Amino acid sequence: MATKVTIWNEFRHEKTKDAVKKLYPEGMHKVIGDALAKTGDFEITLAALDDPEHGLTEEVLANTDTLVWWGHCAHGEVKEEIVDRVQQRVLEGMGLVVLHSGHFSKIFRRMLGTNCSLKWREVAERERLWNLAPSHPITEGIGEYIELPNTEMYGERFDIPEPDKLIFVSWFEGGEVFRSGCVFERGNGRIFYFRPGHETYPIFYNEQVLKVIANSCKWCAQTVKISTVNAPHCPEPLEKIEEKDIVFGSAGISQTADKL
Amino acid sequence: MATKVTIWNEFRHEKTKDAVKKLYPEGMHKVIGDALAKTGDFEITLAALDDPEHGLTEEVLANTDTLVWWGHCAHGEVKEEIVDRVQQRVLEGMGLVVLHSGHFSKIFRRMLGTNCSLKWREVAERERLWNLAPSHPITEGIGEYIELPNTEMYGERFDIPEPDKLIFVSWFEGGEVFRSGCVFERGNGRIFYFRPGHETYPIFYNEQVLKVIANSCKWCAQTVKISTVNAPHCPEPLEKIEEKDIVFGSAGISQTADKL
Amino acid sequence: MATKVTIWNEFRHEKTKDAVKKLYPEGMHKVIGDALAKTGDFEITLAALDDPEHGLTEEVLANTDTLVWWGHCAHGEVKEEIVDRVQQRVLEGMGLVVLHSGHFSKIFRRMLGTNCSLKWREVAERERLWNLAPSHPITEGIGEYIELPNTEMYGERFDIPEPDKLIFVSWFEGGEVFRSGCVFERGNGRIFYFRPGHETYPIFYNEQVLKVIANSCKWCAQTVKISTVNAPHCPEPLEKIEEKDIVFGSAGISQTADKL
Amino acid sequence: MATKVTIWNEFRHEKTKDAVKKLYPEGMHKVIGDALAKTGDFEITLAALDDPEHGLTEEVLANTDTLVWWGHCAHGEVKEEIVDRVQQRVLEGMGLVVLHSGHFSKIFRRMLGTNCSLKWREVAERERLWNLAPSHPITEGIGEYIELPNTEMYGERFDIPEPDKLIFVSWFEGGEVFRSGCVFERGNGRIFYFRPGHETYPIFYNEQVLKVIANSCKWCAQTVKISTVNAPHCPEPLEKIEEKDIVFGSAGISQTADKL
Repeated sequence: MATKVTIWNEFRHEKTKDAVKKLYPEGMHKVIGDALAKTGDFEITLAALDDPEHGLTEEVLANTDTLVWWGHCAHGEVKEEIVDRVQQRVLEGMGLVVLHSGHFSKIFRRMLGTNCSLKWREVAERERLWNLAPSHPITEGIGEYIELPNTEMYGERFDIPEPDKLIFVSWFEGGEVFRSGCVFERGNGRIFYFRPGHETYPIFYNEQVLKVIANSCKWCAQTVKISTVNAPHCPEPLEKIEEKDIVFGSAGISQTADKL
Repeated sequence: MATKVTIWNEFRHEKTKDAVKKLYPEGMHKVIGDALAKTGDFEITLAALDDPEHGLTEEVLANTDTLVWWGHCAHGEVKEEIVDRVQQRVLEGMGLVVLHSGHFSKIFRRMLGTNCSLKWREVAERERLWNLAPSHPITEGIGEYIELPNTEMYGERFDIPEPDKLIFVSWFEGGEVFRSGCVFERGNGRIFYFRPGHETYPIFYNEQVLKVIANSCKWCAQTVKISTVNAPHCPEPLEKIEEKDIVFGSAGISQTADKL
Repeated sequence: MATKVTIWNEFRHEKTKDAVKKLYPEGMHKVIGDALAKTGDFEITLAALDDPEHGLTEEVLANTDTLVWWGHCAHGEVKEEIVDRVQQRVLEGMGLVVLHSGHFSKIFRRMLGTNCSLKWREVAERERLWNLAPSHPITEGIGEYIELPNTEMYGERFDIPEPDKLIFVSWFEGGEVFRSGCVFERGNGRIFYFRPGHETYPIFYNEQVLKVIANSCKWCAQTVKISTVNAPHCPEPLEKIEEKDIVFGSAGISQTADKL
Repeated sequence: MATKVTIWNEFRHEKTKDAVKKLYPEGMHKVIGDALAKTGDFEITLAALDDPEHGLTEEVLANTDTLVWWGHCAHGEVKEEIVDRVQQRVLEGMGLVVLHSGHFSKIFRRMLGTNCSLKWREVAERERLWNLAPSHPITEGIGEYIELPNTEMYGERFDIPEPDKLIFVSWFEGGEVFRSGCVFERGNGRIFYFRPGHETYPIFYNEQVLKVIANSCKWCAQTVKISTVNAPHCPEPLEKIEEKDIVFGSAGISQTADKL
């Protein structure tokens, strides 16, 4: 059965900057989506910041197994209510794959609770992503490392919680290192952060990068849909409660996370 | 040197409900604060929802090593800007101890990224908190378990990320279990969630509960203050970069997490 | 494609104790194996302590995706060389499911590095295993909890490293709790510890228990076979090394973990 | 109060290889011990492979808060019974700091359960250890990174379980990366692996390296001594057990981990 993947792209640089337009005339999401579709394993939906509801309606999200996210210069324009909606779907079980500069997106920072800051530099240096998890489904078909001839540098300290599993660590020609592939589990959802993807290098044409994105879209996809919004009141104990001689009273009220 | 602890209390039930008023006439924060102060190891500041800026001014937070948080019926009234401020202080290195119904507070859910929902029931049942980490500083002086004769039940599944360290697991008379003591590290800060603390039982007069709160206030306190807001641009590589024959250009802009 | 499961049983209690013989005349491994085989998803091999090489020859292990382990009174009779062999297969990628009193087996303690001790009591008390990971493949088809009417009690503190993922926590009628379902990753292998399984209660006839065993056998099974025994010498750097003006010499020798 | 540190050195290369003898005429342990002693914070004991009982008698270990371990060419000569003894002390609460080629020591592999293999190369290349945990006590006084001009390379994949906390990641001039500072908790003990330390480079004269060793010796030291060898029988339930109508019998025997 095909994995339903929605690829969200800010889709601004491709319209305003010649270097990016040349590389990705129809947007990075189109290139990624076409590559995934070609494998025959995915049903692809494209979504962008300037679409109504950013292309992420309730219906689209309900039909998404894994959401891929790329953003950079317009993180601040993503509406809080859409971020809320995506967050709840991830907590229910939807996968989330965050690419490159998506580290600073509202949804990624929302899911992790940290600032997700990092060092950066753009001098077209060489990067080598070392595979630390050779038996993980995300690295299937990837050998010891991925080498990218020209990339933007991202350096530690990357302000993220300790990942549930560290998949890739990058070496940079200029002297830095970076946790470039990180798995996080939140609620019932799986999240994968993957570093490569700068808009001015042809990163999303690299076969190994595309393979990792495809693998992670499959691995993050799950069939469960379990809401965690409510705090269910369970007045009936499963076991008999001994009688107590105290008087007590409730100050509590049943609560729902989405009303807080 | 004394650990500087600020104890934040919603401080509403104590004013509106007789059962609570009787137990905590000056508020739960006062009782906890007095107990901590008596040890001689702490400087205590009290803060409440209805204080200006909820009692959590920049100055107060700058002088807080660990912030203790109790809230229940008015989570929604806590201003987003104060939550932002507390979050940044935690990421900088301030400790955060969240008590009982604080599981649904904005600040706890913000730090963890999940809904933090759980099952609950109020029938004054017995609880036994088993100590899973006998060598952790938070359980110093606590034996195999803490027994509380009458408590509100909190049951799994508790919607939290996998804790960095699980300290207590509760057994409830009515048949449930709960991860009652959980350590999380976020940014440069340490967070401890501790389950006991219902407003209608005299939980905050229990010596073992107070001991755990004191221990955790010390353990979460750190001297570092390291902001993680900026994504520093590091244009000068540490190593020599090989010359490349490609033309590239930057679409990037220096970014700061607090402007996103 | 069927998952190849080898079920290892100490197979002594069934021969020497009437109560056990009555429940499991051909051994617990036979009952588990039959149940798994009935699903059509598995190829089952049975192995026992008194078989030559404990039934775990190189060939058997090479053809095993997941090994299930039950032992109790004769842990000390398992030969070190067979433990070595199983350990290396797990590190290569074979799954390992350890049941109940297998917590004290050589292989489990070898994989974890801790004593794996726990509290215990046999008074036929009720146990409820709460599902903390409702979206994990191991709990597929299991609801909120599994209830067992009569079990041996295992209580904390369970001396194990922090699990990579905590799946079940048990509540016991007598007042204790236990981490009853724990995932560990070691080398390229996945390990699942599952508490139920006492020999004098009909635990391995319980449908939910069998479902969890089946799920975990699938989840732990992987196709990779990656040895981690060698420390490969890589004399040729991937990048050019700057010339240094120091004289240095190697005291090192190429090493292999299995010779240490 | 001074932290009691025992520094264990294989102490062979220093006797047989001129390059090493010249650097460390009285052994690496002497140089590290003197540096630690100079701070006034430690009581130092030196121990070596060729001492009776490898210098690690019951008495020495009973008086050790943290044990530092360096070994390389003679891992196989360390007696199993001494490894058993050290393992039990770590599980009781003694700290363990493993340096460099100690990755292949029996005690480190015993504590972790994996082969601890890695890539290596000796061409005197530059290493930069990036600090991923700026608020952790182990990195106190260390800035963003430690730079070592000439080192042996250790490269991923390092066959270790996911560390409880990742402290340093190394960049190597030749193109590799490595998890160079890793915290593990096992039983009641804390373990720190620290990569630097080759015998033919003057690594243990580097002030930052010595600072990290001193910090980790303090952080791993704990006052608790809690044995985890026994599986305590607790025949008396804490709660009343409902009467059942089944007959059951015990096949169990009280067990102790050190007899298995």
